[in-house]
Amino acid sequence: MSGDLDLTVARKVLEAQPFSVLLGARLTAFDGEGATLELDIRDDLRQQHGFVHGGVLSYAADNAITFAAGAAVGAQVVTAGFTIDYLRPAQGDLLRARARIVRAGRTRVVCRCDLSTVDAEGAETPCAVAQGTVSVLEDQNSA
Amino acid sequence: MSGDLDLTVARKVLEAQPFSVLLGARLTAFDGEGATLELDIRDDLRQQHGFVHGGVLSYAADNAITFAAGAAVGAQVVTAGFTIDYLRPAQGDLLRARARIVRAGRTRVVCRCDLSTVDAEGAETPCAVAQGTVSVLEDQNSA
Amino acid sequence: MSGDLDLTVARKVLEAQPFSVLLGARLTAFDGEGATLELDIRDDLRQQHGFVHGGVLSYAADNAITFAAGAAVGAQVVTAGFTIDYLRPAQGDLLRARARIVRAGRTRVVCRCDLSTVDAEGAETPCAVAQGTVSVLEDQNSA
Amino acid sequence: MSGDLDLTVARKVLEAQPFSVLLGARLTAFDGEGATLELDIRDDLRQQHGFVHGGVLSYAADNAITFAAGAAVGAQVVTAGFTIDYLRPAQGDLLRARARIVRAGRTRVVCRCDLSTVDAEGAETPCAVAQGTVSVLEDQNSA
Repeated sequence: MSGDLDLTVARKVLEAQPFSVLLGARLTAFDGEGATLELDIRDDLRQQHGFVHGGVLSYAADNAITFAAGAAVGAQVVTAGFTIDYLRPAQGDLLRARARIVRAGRTRVVCRCDLSTVDAEGAETPCAVAQGTVSVLEDQNSA
Repeated sequence: MSGDLDLTVARKVLEAQPFSVLLGARLTAFDGEGATLELDIRDDLRQQHGFVHGGVLSYAADNAITFAAGAAVGAQVVTAGFTIDYLRPAQGDLLRARARIVRAGRTRVVCRCDLSTVDAEGAETPCAVAQGTVSVLEDQNSA
Repeated sequence: MSGDLDLTVARKVLEAQPFSVLLGARLTAFDGEGATLELDIRDDLRQQHGFVHGGVLSYAADNAITFAAGAAVGAQVVTAGFTIDYLRPAQGDLLRARARIVRAGRTRVVCRCDLSTVDAEGAETPCAVAQGTVSVLEDQNSA
Repeated sequence: MSGDLDLTVARKVLEAQPFSVLLGARLTAFDGEGATLELDIRDDLRQQHGFVHGGVLSYAADNAITFAAGAAVGAQVVTAGFTIDYLRPAQGDLLRARARIVRAGRTRVVCRCDLSTVDAEGAETPCAVAQGTVSVLEDQNSA
C-alpha cells in the first residue's frame, strides 16, 4: 500500500486485490484507529460443517491488520506475520474484522484484530482474535 | 474431520469444504507424517502487486495443519489457532503447504507447516512458515 | 492451578513457583476479568544494553495468561502456548503484565496480555502485547 | 548484538546479559545454521508441580532465536516477537534450545526453535517448539 491513504484510496487498493474481490471483502472503516473489513458469509466461504472456513477468518485478519497498519503509517507496508486463535465456530450473515494499531514504529507496526460474526438482527458474536506485525517498506522491493 | 482417515477419505472431506473448492485446493499427501495441500496460483488468488495474497497462504497453512492433525489422531479435530510468518513475496505456478506433526497428544496436536511456491520448472521457493495447534474433539459439538 | 481460586489462594500458587519467587513476581489483581502480575525491574533481569530481558517479558506474559485463565475457569489449567510481540525496549522501575480473558471455553481459554513498564512517577509505557491459549485439564495428569 | 560474531564473541554477549547469568544459560553452538542455548534445570527454575516453568522455556526460545539471527546476519538484532507451543511438562537435568535460521532477509530474520529436556542418560525429550522474527537494526537506536 502507498502513503497518505484515506478510505476512498484504501478501497481502491482493496479492489485491486483479486483475492479480496473473489471473497467479496469491503472496507467499512479506515482511520487513525485502524481498519475494519467485512464480507458476507456466502455458502462458498464455508467448511464441511457449514461454518465459515478458518481460512476465511485468517484472510480477514491478515488483510485487516495490513490495512490498519497502512492507515497508521501512511506508507508502503507488507504483513510480516500474524497469530490467530479461533474462539468458536463462525456462523451468521456477515464476518467483521476490526484491526487496531497497538504500536506504530518507524519500521514495524503491531496490530490486534477482533473478528466477529453478525446475524440478521445485527447481534455480534466474537469468533477469533489475532495479533500481527506489519513491516514498513522503504521501497517496494524491500524484503 | 472424522476418525480412521486415509487419503481417499481425506480428499472427500476437502471436497466437502466449499471454500477449498473455491480456491482449487487438493490434497497430495496424507499419512503418519502429516499432510500436503496444493493449489494452482490462479490470477484471482493474488493481491494488488501480482503476488499470491497472504490470505491464500494463511488458508493453506490453516487447512494443511488441520489435515495433518486429522491424519495423526484419526479423530474429529478443529484448528485452535496458528501463527504464520511470511518469508518473501509468493509467486509461481503452484502453492504447496506441507504440514507435519510435531506432537500428537490426547487432546491437542501441534504441527508445523512449510509453504513454498513451485515454478514451471518445478523449482521450489519457500514463502512462509507456520506453527499451529489443533484440538481433538470428543464429539462434534465440543468447543 | 486448582479450582475456586481467589487472590489469596492464587498468591499461594505463585509463591509455590520457585521461578516466580526467583524473579520476584507478585499478583496484584485476580478476578473475573483476568490477572495482573508485577515485578520490580532488578538489575539481574536485564539484557546487555540495560533493558529488561525479553525472557522476563515472556515469562510475565506466560504466567499472567495462565493465572487469568485460572481465575476464569476455576479449574486446573496449563498454558498451551502464546505469542508475544515486543513494542519497544523495556525500562523503568516496575514491569506490569495484565492478562484478560477473551473467551473461556470448556476445554480452552484464550487470553490477551498487555505488558508495560512503570517509572518512578507511575507513568506507564507499553512494552509488549501477547495472546495465548490455556488448556483446561480434566485431571492433573492430562496432556 | 553486534556484527561479525563467532562463538567466543557470542558467549561474551550472553555473559553481558544479567538475566542469562541469573538463569545459568550457556551457548553451545553458534554458526551459520543457528544457535543452541542450554541451561541446567535447577530447582529455582521450576513451577509449583516441579516441572520447568514455562517462562524458562520461553526465555530460552527467545534468546536462542535472537542469537541464531545474530549468527546469520552478523549485525545488530533485536527479537521482534515469537510464538511458543508447549508439548509436554518439561523435566530432566538439562534444557536445550536449538534455534535455526529459516530465512535471513535484509531487515528481518525468521527462525524456528526446538526445545527439549535431556535426562541423566543423555536422552532428549521435546518439550516445546517456537517460531520467531528478529529485526535487523541499522543502528542501536532503531525501533
